[in-house]
Parts: sequence; C-alpha cells; structure tokens
Amino acid sequence: MGIVVQKYGGSSVADATSVKRVAQRIVATRKAGHDVVVVVSAMGDTTDELIDLANQVTPLPPGRELDMLLTAGERISMAVLAMAIGNLGQEARSFTGSQAGVITDSEHGRAKIIDVTPGRIEDALAQGAIAIVAGFQGVSQTTKDITTLGRGGSDTTAVALAAALAADVCEIYTDVDGIFTADPRIVATARQIPRISYEEMLEMAANGAKILHLRCVEYARRNDMPIHVRSSFSEKQGTWVVRAQDVAQEGHPMEQAIISGVAHDRSESKITVVGVPDKVGEAASIFRTLADAQINIDMIVQNVSAAATNLTDISFTLPRTDGQNAMTALARLKDDVGFERLQYDDSVGKVSIIGAGMRSSPGVTAKFFQALADAGVNIEMVSTSEIRISVVTAESQIDAAVNAAHEAFGLGTDEVEAVVYGGTGR
Amino acid sequence: MGIVVQKYGGSSVADATSVKRVAQRIVATRKAGHDVVVVVSAMGDTTDELIDLANQVTPLPPGRELDMLLTAGERISMAVLAMAIGNLGQEARSFTGSQAGVITDSEHGRAKIIDVTPGRIEDALAQGAIAIVAGFQGVSQTTKDITTLGRGGSDTTAVALAAALAADVCEIYTDVDGIFTADPRIVATARQIPRISYEEMLEMAANGAKILHLRCVEYARRNDMPIHVRSSFSEKQGTWVVRAQDVAQEGHPMEQAIISGVAHDRSESKITVVGVPDKVGEAASIFRTLADAQINIDMIVQNVSAAATNLTDISFTLPRTDGQNAMTALARLKDDVGFERLQYDDSVGKVSIIGAGMRSSPGVTAKFFQALADAGVNIEMVSTSEIRISVVTAESQIDAAVNAAHEAFGLGTDEVEAVVYGGTGR
Repeated sequence: MGIVVQKYGGSSVADATSVKRVAQRIVATRKAGHDVVVVVSAMGDTTDELIDLANQVTPLPPGRELDMLLTAGERISMAVLAMAIGNLGQEARSFTGSQAGVITDSEHGRAKIIDVTPGRIEDALAQGAIAIVAGFQGVSQTTKDITTLGRGGSDTTAVALAAALAADVCEIYTDVDGIFTADPRIVATARQIPRISYEEMLEMAANGAKILHLRCVEYARRNDMPIHVRSSFSEKQGTWVVRAQDVAQEGHPMEQAIISGVAHDRSESKITVVGVPDKVGEAASIFRTLADAQINIDMIVQNVSAAATNLTDISFTLPRTDGQNAMTALARLKDDVGFERLQYDDSVGKVSIIGAGMRSSPGVTAKFFQALADAGVNIEMVSTSEIRISVVTAESQIDAAVNAAHEAFGLGTDEVEAVVYGGTGR
Repeated sequence: MGIVVQKYGGSSVADATSVKRVAQRIVATRKAGHDVVVVVSAMGDTTDELIDLANQVTPLPPGRELDMLLTAGERISMAVLAMAIGNLGQEARSFTGSQAGVITDSEHGRAKIIDVTPGRIEDALAQGAIAIVAGFQGVSQTTKDITTLGRGGSDTTAVALAAALAADVCEIYTDVDGIFTADPRIVATARQIPRISYEEMLEMAANGAKILHLRCVEYARRNDMPIHVRSSFSEKQGTWVVRAQDVAQEGHPMEQAIISGVAHDRSESKITVVGVPDKVGEAASIFRTLADAQINIDMIVQNVSAAATNLTDISFTLPRTDGQNAMTALARLKDDVGFERLQYDDSVGKVSIIGAGMRSSPGVTAKFFQALADAGVNIEMVSTSEIRISVVTAESQIDAAVNAAHEAFGLGTDEVEAVVYGGTGR
C-alpha cells in the first residue's frame, strides 16, 4: 500500500494523554500496511504562550527570531509524539521542517513553500520507520534561516509533503467530524458532507470556514492531492475534498445540489470613505495606500456618485485586526484625496452561500436575498464569484442569515449532501 | 578589540526579567567595542519540564527523540534573548548548535564535540550583529541528527566556540560570584579566588565543585582558552581559570599556596563486595560487569586479604544515581565470583583538598588527616592524585570535615587567594 500523510492539529496533541491517543491511531495506520508520514502542530496553546513570552521582552519581535522561537513548539510536540509511538513498539523519527526538506522563501512569519525535498523522510520510510514532521515551518532557500508559514501552516506542510511524496491521501485530523453545511453551533440541522470539490472548499475557506486553510486547499487543488478531513477523537468517515468530477462520481446524483454550504465570517470590519471626489485615480490612491500598509482588502463597493456634488462613497471590508492600521493610513491621506470623512464599523459580518451548482441555476441570488429579507436581515454589501454569493450584514444578524440561507436551499434535508462548516471568526 | 564569548546559564535567563537584564550586559559588552558571541542555556527549569513531559509518554525515551525534545529549550531562550537585545537597539541573531557548526559524534545525550565550524557566526559578527548560540547541542557528523552534550554541556559549547573563534576570553556567567575556597554555605570564612589553574580547577570539578563542568575545563586547558567565571547578578570580578604559570605571574607571591581549595561531593554512594576470593581476575570481573552496565566508578579500595580465609573486601564509590543498577548487576555475579555479600551505603560523602603546591610540600596528608581526626571525622576511604587528596566519610560529617580542612590550611585568611567552591552534590 502507499504513503499516507496525516496531520494532527494542536488540539489533537494538547497533552500527554492526547499524544498517546494519536500515537495509537498512527500505529494502527502503520500496521494496516501503509507508510505513514505525520505532520504535527505545536501542543495546545504552546504557540500563544511563546508569543506571550516574546511580547514580555519586546513589543516588536524581529521576524527571524520570532520564527526561531515559535518553531520550538512543533519541535516539542513531534519529539514527544515520536517517543509515544516508540513506546508502542514502532520506530518513529522526528524531523524539523528544514530536515524534512521544506524549502521556503525568506518572508518570516508568512513564508511560502518553494520546494519540498523530502529525501530524509523517504529514507526513514524505506527503513520502516514512521516519519514525524514539524508542521508550520521551513528553511529559507537563500538565507538558510528558519521560517514559518503563518497560522494554520501545518495544513499546508501536510499537503505539500503529501504531494512531494506522491502520497495516496493527505488526512487532516481536527476536533470536529468534517466539513458541515453550516456551523452546527448556529444551525441545528447542519449536516456533515462526505465529499466536496476543491473549488467549493476554497470559497468556503476564503469566506470564514476555519477548518482548512486557503493555502492548503489551493496547494491540494494544484497538485490534485485528495484531502480527508477527520476527527482525531472519533472513527467517523469525515469529509473528502477532491476534484469536482470526483464529487459526483461516487454514486451521488449527477444533478448536483445547487448550494453546497453556507459559510460565515465574524472577523471582518467595514470602512467607508465618505465624499470622495469622483475623479480618475482617487480610488487607486486609497487602495495603494492600504496595499502599502500590507492590508488585505476583501469586498469593495463604490456607489454611483451623486450628480449634484460629484462625490461618491467607497466602502470595503478588511480583517478587523487591520482596522486600526487602515484608519491611521487613510487619515494621513485625507488632504491629498480630499474626501470628507472615514467611517469605521467593526460590528459587521459576512454570510456566503457556496455551490458549483449555481453556475447553471438561475434565480439563486433572488432566492438567497428573499430568504434574508424574510428573516429581517439587512444587506449592506454584496459580492459574487462564479460559485459564491456573499453579503455583508450586521454582526447581530449573522445567525439569522445563516439559518435562513441553510433553510432556503434545503441543506438540512436529505436532498443534498455537500456541506460546509462555517467558522466562528476566531 | 577581539571576540568575547559569554555563556549564561538557566538561572541567569529564568524569566523575561532576567533575560532583559542579561541583554543589557551583552549590549554593554558590545558597546565597549567587542565582538560578542553568547551561548545560552534553556530558561530556568525548562529542561526538567521537558524531561517530565517525555516521561509522561514513555519510561524510556529514545535518545534521538529526547535530544530533539530537549534542544527546544535553548531554542526558546536564545530567540527570546535575541529579541531582548534587538529591543535595546542592537541586532542579534540566534543560531542552533547545528547552525553554529557544533559538530559532534552520534552519542545522543552525551555527544562529544568533534569539530566546530562557526562560519555563520563569523558572518554575523562581520556584519556587526551579536551572535546568540544554543548551548548544550550540536549535530551528528554522520547521521545529521540533533545531539546534546549532556548536562552542563553549555559550558563546553562556550569554550569550544571560543577556541574555534580564537576569542580573547570565555566568560561563564552563573548565579555565584566565582570560585570559592569552599562552599560558602558550609564555611563562613570561605573566600572567592581571583585566579586558579586549569589543573586545580579540573580536580575541583571532578570532586564536587559544580560551577564548571569537567569537560569544559578540559577543553579550555587543551586549547589554552582563559575562562572567566562571573555572576550575572553583579559586577564583581569573578575568578579566572588560566594556565598555572599565569596564576603566579599576576603579582601573586611566587611561593604558591599549598592548598587552593576544599571541594566536597554528596552525590556518591559506596558499595562493598564482602568476602571476595583473593584470586587473579576476580576484581577484574567485578569491574568489567560494572563497566558493561555503563557505571562510572570513582574511588576503589581493596583490603589486604585475611590470611586465614584468603578472602578480601573490595569497596568502591560511584554516583548514587547508578547505585541501584550496580547492585543489580553485581548480584547477578554472586555465584560466578563467589563473594559473600554486597553492602550498599548511600550516606557517604567525599571531601577533597586541592592544590598544586602540595607537589613540593611534604606533610600535607598528615596535616589533613590530623585536622579531620581533631574534628572527630572518621576516614573510610582515601585516594590521591598529584595535586589532590580525597577522603570518603559519613555524609553527616562532611560539613565538619570541610571546615576542618579549610581552617587547617589557612584558606580563610589573607595567606592564600586561590580557592574553590564546593558543590552540594545536587
């Protein structure tokens, strides 16, 4: 049998007891005849504790040193996991990102994987050992310094290693049973989906579903590496993230569900630049300023300018964590651009419906908006992609909006199976 | 000015506050014009906590994985220290043992340094940065696996790096003011020594003084690297460990003090093999058995055999931590060797007087033994080297013995200056 890559997150290895439980699952996979490569995150809250420690000595830790510090977290979990496996009679060897051949660029704290050269992992497998690899970390191709991939980077490590090793599957273990049609904490009838396409999963991840990170799904899609999202606390089947054609192939109705799931996001805020002169280049200078401040913009809406004044309003959403920086940067621009004022609203949220089926189904937007209207939900902004419709609304109306959409498209019944878990915005 | 290597132990970097204080000392050294390389241990009790964690998942952690785990400790301290220095406006870059070029053999948990190739450290210094290096760790020349040098290995890292970089001095920072004529907690009149020879320091370290590790002093002597032992909590001058000729050269009386210091050790136990047939090869088989069990023997005494029985007793001392293993190994030998019984005593201790001056001073032994007798101390075993006399006595008599020796050789007065700190056997 082939290679299986398994990734365990921090909650799956939170303490010695959890580590021992995970070790048993890994050994069972090995005994079933697979070559096993395990990617592991730092134990429990280790990463946050290390960041706290850094902040005790400096308000602005240099990126190189912060990466050196944080990578101690996986070093601990991987070594302890290897020991626990050894205690079950199987040989396991741990490898840092660098030792595993995870080569990145030099952007500390958000490095991108350039190449994976897993020679030492292949050697370990050839010698019958289980390989344990530190997630989230790599080594810079140019400076040879230790880098990290950013939060959630362990998922990306797992998929990248799986692709480089030509693994059969990349299993992502987490603390929920898989991907749901909506967040089960919000929607009582939310159901777990057996299979979903990369494209839908990408939209889910980009719009608030927190289980898989965007980069990990992108990497999997590019390399056609099936992801199996499962709970490390149960033996349930979980959700497969696969090519679109493979979603339908497995005995599912050829007529795909129009909507696969509802995602929501509470992590955004909205800024409105009021009274912008409607001239060429004004919007560009606003967004150039934000780009220079390293702020990622999500949705943008520009009103038609009022004829009388030739002034327009530009609204956009952005991560709440960037709100203060964005307001500061824009305030400095006030005189140059000549806008009237800035409005900041951090009590907004975003609700998205996602489904490949909407490509061929007219009336999805109308149905979505009618459901929101019936639930008394006010739409502040709208954006769409080929397989997604997102609305921004007041944060207090998110739960109502998610339930209304879930109900309107029949996601809680047996009619559909593809579903997505909505994140909490944490 | 040249390169200064500074080593800070775990108690000097126990928490964020300590790290910031150490950072100020390092920056002051840099500002005085030196190139500074810092070797740092894990913060406070980190190493013990990591060992505890390992023991929660397995009673026998594999050496490779234990080394991987423990090296996370210095990774944390070195990154945090580099950040704290950065916060003071100086650039600092941290390096793992591997990155610093500390090449070792493959003996996990007690690796020996084979080579030091500090190219990245030299680059960092050339670029004006302070280099922070993880103590205690290296990388195996053959397997490329991470290794550790064993407890106290950070001192050895510091001296090895200092030698490889041709540093002016290797400063070892600790939580006491330097090397004392005896443990100040036992001897009220104990005095700190300004200078001591490598040879005397070696005897001190081997016989219970815990401030410097044997390997570190050996490495320094072989490479003629001056060690400066200082407190990180004060600005006092500390103790220089230098060549014997340099002890006298610095304005000291040419007539060296006969005794430089008194060391003691509470970490040993004594085993007596009673009624060993006095035949060729019996002692050899006893000590071969112990060697096979990886037990280090310290002192050995064999009595003249009683003429009537042709039986003799063999006593030896060994680390208390090895006591159980040794007794088990010897018990299995009982029938082969035909000895009568084993006696185990873990309430013994060792007191040593050390001084290069005893080479040319007859009567030192007599004076030492008379002092012990006057203090009511019973001598159980004796061993000597060219510059040391050690006795084994009951643990309860150690304090009295140390004080008697210290007094007898006038160490507490102005007559001598060379002195040694006696360890606690912890």
